[in-house]
Amino acid sequence: MRICFLNGQFVPEDEAKISVFDRGFLFSDSVYEVSAVFNGRLVDNRGHLNRLQNSLSEIGIASPYSNEEIIELQKQLIEKNQLENGSVYLQVTRGEESARDFLPNPSTPPTVVMIPQHKDLTVNPLAERGARVITVPDIRWAKRHIKATGLLGAVLAKQAATAAGCDDAWFVEDGYVTEGSANNAFFIKGNTLVTKAPSSQILNGITRQSVIRIVEDYDLVLEERDFTVAEAQAADEAFASSATMLIVPVVAIDDSIIGDGKPGAMAQKIRQTYIDMALANLLP
Amino acid sequence: MRICFLNGQFVPEDEAKISVFDRGFLFSDSVYEVSAVFNGRLVDNRGHLNRLQNSLSEIGIASPYSNEEIIELQKQLIEKNQLENGSVYLQVTRGEESARDFLPNPSTPPTVVMIPQHKDLTVNPLAERGARVITVPDIRWAKRHIKATGLLGAVLAKQAATAAGCDDAWFVEDGYVTEGSANNAFFIKGNTLVTKAPSSQILNGITRQSVIRIVEDYDLVLEERDFTVAEAQAADEAFASSATMLIVPVVAIDDSIIGDGKPGAMAQKIRQTYIDMALANLLP
Repeated sequence: MRICFLNGQFVPEDEAKISVFDRGFLFSDSVYEVSAVFNGRLVDNRGHLNRLQNSLSEIGIASPYSNEEIIELQKQLIEKNQLENGSVYLQVTRGEESARDFLPNPSTPPTVVMIPQHKDLTVNPLAERGARVITVPDIRWAKRHIKATGLLGAVLAKQAATAAGCDDAWFVEDGYVTEGSANNAFFIKGNTLVTKAPSSQILNGITRQSVIRIVEDYDLVLEERDFTVAEAQAADEAFASSATMLIVPVVAIDDSIIGDGKPGAMAQKIRQTYIDMALANLLP
Repeated sequence: MRICFLNGQFVPEDEAKISVFDRGFLFSDSVYEVSAVFNGRLVDNRGHLNRLQNSLSEIGIASPYSNEEIIELQKQLIEKNQLENGSVYLQVTRGEESARDFLPNPSTPPTVVMIPQHKDLTVNPLAERGARVITVPDIRWAKRHIKATGLLGAVLAKQAATAAGCDDAWFVEDGYVTEGSANNAFFIKGNTLVTKAPSSQILNGITRQSVIRIVEDYDLVLEERDFTVAEAQAADEAFASSATMLIVPVVAIDDSIIGDGKPGAMAQKIRQTYIDMALANLLP
């Protein structure tokens, strides 16, 4: 039985219940973050918490806790769950109101939820064999730099990928790849690493930012720019990054095999470097 | 204390709680409907339930109940709450899963919630004085014909309207008005009634459809087509429709007063006709 955090209290997971009047449930009026845990320690957590504060600010929810206070609660959650490897999910909603009204009451206190997940993220069959992705139209809302819980578009994309016998979907908008269903998209051609520049069209992934710092030491030139599906299909390698998948090689995009169809050497190297740095506590 | 419906049981509202693992909470993986109640009777309910079934089908949730079963539950909810005037809110989510994963398990049973709201919808100060609306970019997702709970875009629009000292917001996309924050937009010029044609850009309102049937008897020519903000601003009248606001005249759009700045006669007539028909049980 896991222990969750809910509005100031640690409770068994079967008691972690929110009111049906919670605005997170009725309006998806909420934002979230997921931080990986390696050996009981949070990975890249500062970036996640900074982004959480930014997401809250963007939608006008007063932050319920400082980053330091959240870190203390995350650590308690990790300890109470003896969470060695996995992740901590954190969601903040605009809170519970007795009348359903699109216009929130500014004095409503936010709802804060934390959920632990046990899973060794360094062990992932998909990282071994590489992911096959399909491309789908990007039907999501326009403010994707906010990590909001209105994720039905991503759920439908993931379902479509599975229905097509693939592992994930990359969104395409105005002829260009935006990002994966819940991850950032990259490709390598020659010594150039290409990924879309941060904008409101994508979530600027915390793992994405770590990948960019890691490759500073590599013989790779970073280009943050728009790219087409055809460009990515013609690449030597492709990969995706997120807090829970870390870095996963992509071996096919729609009907096109990438490179020789096997996980790319550079993607594997970046993945291993990320894991090594996380284990060495170099990604606080 | 209201009585809510939750997964087969009627429970006091303070016991109407869902798990934080519910996909409606984590992913806004859910759809909803709101049916008005006049004198204890559901208004335009068949249209709402048909659309609910369509929304469920669109996102691949197996419908938990037939329309007849839902109607029976709605009637029980109305009776248990002695609900004379107000609305019944109905939400169906893809259900609760112990691991947070974008890809749902097809065998997860849906979560079904019903919430009563007491409020005489025929009494509305906004209908007397007319609504002032602002226009905002339509930042919502692309599948607005699905009545999904990913409503943060609408919440932000409503907040922006309030911050501007106005009552509501109309969304604008590619130079054309799509719809209001949670209602359909209309204007009248001469004897022409204009509203956007149904597409994935808007929710085809049940009240919208009733308005269109009502005006068949009027000296008005219906044009379902795209229209600009400037066209609506130059109209003789404007109004908005929804299940809970019914028909509400719009008297200003951004800085432009509509007509003489007072609620339009035709909008008021349509509103009264709608109310009369609902009270006469002519909108089942």
